[in-house]
Amino acid sequence: MNFSSDTAAPAHPAILEAMFAASKGPSPSYGSDPWSAAARQSLRDVFETDLDIWLVSSGTAANALALATLCPSHGAVICHNEAHIERDERGAPEFFTGGAKLALLPGAHARIDMGALREKVAANRHDFMHETPAHVLSLSNLTESGAAYRPFEIAERAALAREAGLAVHLDGARLANALVSTGASPAEMTWRAGVDVLCFGATKNGAVGCEAIILFGAARQRAQDLMVRAKRAGHMPPKMRFLAAQMSAYLQDGLWLQLARRANTSATSLATALTRAGAELAHPVDGNEVFARLPDGMADRLSAAGAKFYPWIDGSHRFVCSWATEPSEIDAFAAYLA
Amino acid sequence: MNFSSDTAAPAHPAILEAMFAASKGPSPSYGSDPWSAAARQSLRDVFETDLDIWLVSSGTAANALALATLCPSHGAVICHNEAHIERDERGAPEFFTGGAKLALLPGAHARIDMGALREKVAANRHDFMHETPAHVLSLSNLTESGAAYRPFEIAERAALAREAGLAVHLDGARLANALVSTGASPAEMTWRAGVDVLCFGATKNGAVGCEAIILFGAARQRAQDLMVRAKRAGHMPPKMRFLAAQMSAYLQDGLWLQLARRANTSATSLATALTRAGAELAHPVDGNEVFARLPDGMADRLSAAGAKFYPWIDGSHRFVCSWATEPSEIDAFAAYLA
Amino acid sequence: MNFSSDTAAPAHPAILEAMFAASKGPSPSYGSDPWSAAARQSLRDVFETDLDIWLVSSGTAANALALATLCPSHGAVICHNEAHIERDERGAPEFFTGGAKLALLPGAHARIDMGALREKVAANRHDFMHETPAHVLSLSNLTESGAAYRPFEIAERAALAREAGLAVHLDGARLANALVSTGASPAEMTWRAGVDVLCFGATKNGAVGCEAIILFGAARQRAQDLMVRAKRAGHMPPKMRFLAAQMSAYLQDGLWLQLARRANTSATSLATALTRAGAELAHPVDGNEVFARLPDGMADRLSAAGAKFYPWIDGSHRFVCSWATEPSEIDAFAAYLA
Amino acid sequence: MNFSSDTAAPAHPAILEAMFAASKGPSPSYGSDPWSAAARQSLRDVFETDLDIWLVSSGTAANALALATLCPSHGAVICHNEAHIERDERGAPEFFTGGAKLALLPGAHARIDMGALREKVAANRHDFMHETPAHVLSLSNLTESGAAYRPFEIAERAALAREAGLAVHLDGARLANALVSTGASPAEMTWRAGVDVLCFGATKNGAVGCEAIILFGAARQRAQDLMVRAKRAGHMPPKMRFLAAQMSAYLQDGLWLQLARRANTSATSLATALTRAGAELAHPVDGNEVFARLPDGMADRLSAAGAKFYPWIDGSHRFVCSWATEPSEIDAFAAYLA
Repeated sequence: MNFSSDTAAPAHPAILEAMFAASKGPSPSYGSDPWSAAARQSLRDVFETDLDIWLVSSGTAANALALATLCPSHGAVICHNEAHIERDERGAPEFFTGGAKLALLPGAHARIDMGALREKVAANRHDFMHETPAHVLSLSNLTESGAAYRPFEIAERAALAREAGLAVHLDGARLANALVSTGASPAEMTWRAGVDVLCFGATKNGAVGCEAIILFGAARQRAQDLMVRAKRAGHMPPKMRFLAAQMSAYLQDGLWLQLARRANTSATSLATALTRAGAELAHPVDGNEVFARLPDGMADRLSAAGAKFYPWIDGSHRFVCSWATEPSEIDAFAAYLA
Repeated sequence: MNFSSDTAAPAHPAILEAMFAASKGPSPSYGSDPWSAAARQSLRDVFETDLDIWLVSSGTAANALALATLCPSHGAVICHNEAHIERDERGAPEFFTGGAKLALLPGAHARIDMGALREKVAANRHDFMHETPAHVLSLSNLTESGAAYRPFEIAERAALAREAGLAVHLDGARLANALVSTGASPAEMTWRAGVDVLCFGATKNGAVGCEAIILFGAARQRAQDLMVRAKRAGHMPPKMRFLAAQMSAYLQDGLWLQLARRANTSATSLATALTRAGAELAHPVDGNEVFARLPDGMADRLSAAGAKFYPWIDGSHRFVCSWATEPSEIDAFAAYLA
Repeated sequence: MNFSSDTAAPAHPAILEAMFAASKGPSPSYGSDPWSAAARQSLRDVFETDLDIWLVSSGTAANALALATLCPSHGAVICHNEAHIERDERGAPEFFTGGAKLALLPGAHARIDMGALREKVAANRHDFMHETPAHVLSLSNLTESGAAYRPFEIAERAALAREAGLAVHLDGARLANALVSTGASPAEMTWRAGVDVLCFGATKNGAVGCEAIILFGAARQRAQDLMVRAKRAGHMPPKMRFLAAQMSAYLQDGLWLQLARRANTSATSLATALTRAGAELAHPVDGNEVFARLPDGMADRLSAAGAKFYPWIDGSHRFVCSWATEPSEIDAFAAYLA
Repeated sequence: MNFSSDTAAPAHPAILEAMFAASKGPSPSYGSDPWSAAARQSLRDVFETDLDIWLVSSGTAANALALATLCPSHGAVICHNEAHIERDERGAPEFFTGGAKLALLPGAHARIDMGALREKVAANRHDFMHETPAHVLSLSNLTESGAAYRPFEIAERAALAREAGLAVHLDGARLANALVSTGASPAEMTWRAGVDVLCFGATKNGAVGCEAIILFGAARQRAQDLMVRAKRAGHMPPKMRFLAAQMSAYLQDGLWLQLARRANTSATSLATALTRAGAELAHPVDGNEVFARLPDGMADRLSAAGAKFYPWIDGSHRFVCSWATEPSEIDAFAAYLA
């Protein structure tokens, strides 16, 4: 009954086996290897377009590098005031950009509110010296509250950004979960909706540690800049084949979507068990996370029973399922609650 | 006959197997897992002292984080003018420190010249506002020319540094190779010789991607600062157990020294074959690298025969052996030359 | 009728004359001159305590240097969400600190709300790696809305900060105006209330361009660090005597308080004229600034009559008086309104 | 007999008077004032071309802002190994660029050696990830050794830079002195010779504190970026008219060249007196600085007689004359020596 985080899960065997398979003979370093080429091709197939990539081992690195590629040190990134880049990355975006600002907007379920965004971009003035103008809009899907944006919701926000001359970044640490629950295709949810740069997570969904920074369309012109920044930040490890092998295995035969579906299903069952026991959902369960306001005493009783989960900043408690969550864990949890 | 780099080698099976073994069940993220504790304990045993560590996936990350922990943005790091941190890390030390300077010194075989160092530290003035005073001395063992420092050579340089109030950093990307060739113990070569922070490499010697930043003695007070910087730089990947498992397997039963010995032996054989064929060694072969000045035409002939190696900045050519270099490769190379 | 800003005013003749007087013969550069020593002594007298200073030519430089001296790159500064450091300095604090964050709090009249501050510091966790903990509380007096904190209001906020281990910075670009209106002494409003570092402005109140960064108490240990940062930021101009001469002249015989009193008096008269004409004050007029919600059409009519002032982000209009505002300007303005 | 530095000199009365004259009535802040426009026009006239400018109060600020405008954080600036930007600005270029590197070249009299430069730019590879490629060539005129480049010497170095895709920066803290001694026009020495950005000093030659960053030709496209960086670095003081008034007065009726000529003449006389007394010139006296190797005991005797000057890093002693050096001082110095 470990619902502490999807990062607590082990790696999927198929991914580890792919690393083993890649460990054969000499191979060029720093991304010039055939596994890296194959990973890029797999991502092209999945996203139905040409694209450039860089692979890193943590989501913080992916987001910070992506933002630094899009935003100058004297610019700002618009994001939700609960976004991971604001709350959980210890100022990595500020570090990688050389001191850019995050401009925070509200919105239910950690989705950026359209009205607030409209007002913010309308007031954005690139030629005013004193304030810091936004250069990027950063969205997260799943959001930090476990909610999904549907493609049109991404698109309408991206359209506002684009009109104001902003680039669009999508933190997709849990994109697989959002795609499964919305039924959208990878292309629909990203570049077709106006996303310029996607941080595409695999770590939380079965990888050892692998996230792809994906540049779409005009943003591909920044590929060289992205690589330079990665090198300079220690995110160009010599044996890149081991990152690439993870990504290819993750995508092969739809493994990534199967794993996300499994996690989402677990979360749905867990949410059902909680609400039946009197808890109230704080946010939509659009992926593998459940945020629930628990009746008095329930948190303590669940902890005492061995369940692991965390209190959240909004007064609810967060329960996270992963690809490795066993149905038996959910059953035990439900049984305990009932 | 791939002597391009030790980073072109695959990972040792024992290390990959350890990652597999670590992929069981849920585990706390971000370094609070039992594998991380075990890796630290293994390093304590190997270095015969208590110590603090942080594990990262690239040598550039290790060096840059270590230097940022020791040097303020308005300070300087003394290093050899051919040091990896100066020539091959795309300004990572400058990025991580927030703009510190590298102060370059000469020295044969990429060992810092004692006279030059003595003069440099004698002129170091912490209270003079206009110049940037050195706060750190950075040494590399093996050096960029494949030479080893013996412990007393580390110690005499560290002593000069310490008298001048500087901390001592050791880039040990190939420390195992230096230990094997000098016969020194890990402790003798590092903290007993005055090293405050060691970047202890495993990647070039059999790991998938794993380097330990090791804090000794008083530098351990910077452990929290180091972790914060790692987090902020995207070098706190959630599933730290997979880095930790590599380090433990690397150290277990002396695997690391066996692998380094194998690589060193290959290099010695390769050097012998080259000199017999008329090449001249540019630097001592104290580890797994051979730098040789080749007779006219030899480089082209070797390339044509399928050997992979690189021209070096000093006019020599570099040949690197690794744990995975097969005796048959050396034999074929020697046979071709003879 | 130029009420656009107090920075639009010329310099007071006494200050220019002091610069002339300082321009005699050779003098040591970079702050080792007798004028700099005299300025420091004058500030000691005014603030009734020993202190260290650094003089700069802009308020942005003063604030950013002060904050960089107090806050590490991986920390945060708590400030009001309308603070000058957040809205009007183009990310200077982020630049000088190397990427620290500003944590924004609400509060009426741009005073930080006590409840919000209490909650914020209660949640501040220095040992949690993922979030950025606050290291500094930054207050402004006058606030960005022209309101003054009284000493006890500074003190109660500083006390909360201190309990949580935070340093306290006071942006005093208009401190003279706040002192005049509250009747507090310089010492009461600053170090006796718990302020560690004060940015003490003269530019808006008659100087050519001069702001003192003043370190009190334990913060004086950072004096060397502050000087190094100033040098590195180009804020150690060689002929420091011309900055120092301004500060001494500013303080001599209470000139600074006379000028502030004059500006405050003008603002009070202007506010009276506006309210009589049907405008409503948006914020208390505690200094030399008036924020008024104007009846329909009044802004256009005033502009047409030649008055200069700006619309403010809260829907009001801002009118700023300075030491150079002539009673005749106020009279003309009042006559026009009546 | 104060030959310590030209920064020890007072300001010329005409420049202070111009500041007085500018202190009349209200004026727009931040460079939108008529004095700023006039200063720009004066510079256009002097340099015989259109140009964009930003005025700052220190040479370190000018150089660091100029370099940050031309060089990305992951690039390098080629300069002489004794250049002011390397030795005397406490890492300001590294700070403002976000961690760019300075690549040091040798050369007699602090002029960059043509052969060394040719070799350096030939090896510059923008597409190699691991090393830091140069983006800028920085020259100084006068050099740190008091020598002048003649226009063709600037031009031949700039041509090498341009072919390799580098921009050219000229540190002209003492440009007036170089122009006087070489007889070159401002245009010949700068944009006609291939200079993109000039830091044009006035402080050492009579100003209170004023340096112009001047963008020529294609570099003018960076004018907005330069202003943003200036703002963010605290180098956009509100009352810009007082910087602008200095520059206009400095240029009016050739004052700047008269002052430089006076200083150069003093230096020539001083050099003559020194060589007659047995000293040997270490560098050409092309401006207002004399570097002389003194016979045994002479330095002590001169100091005892009240002369102020400094030992230099090359074993010589530096004597600096300024616009304010009196003929009587030189006479007294010569008399003492004779």
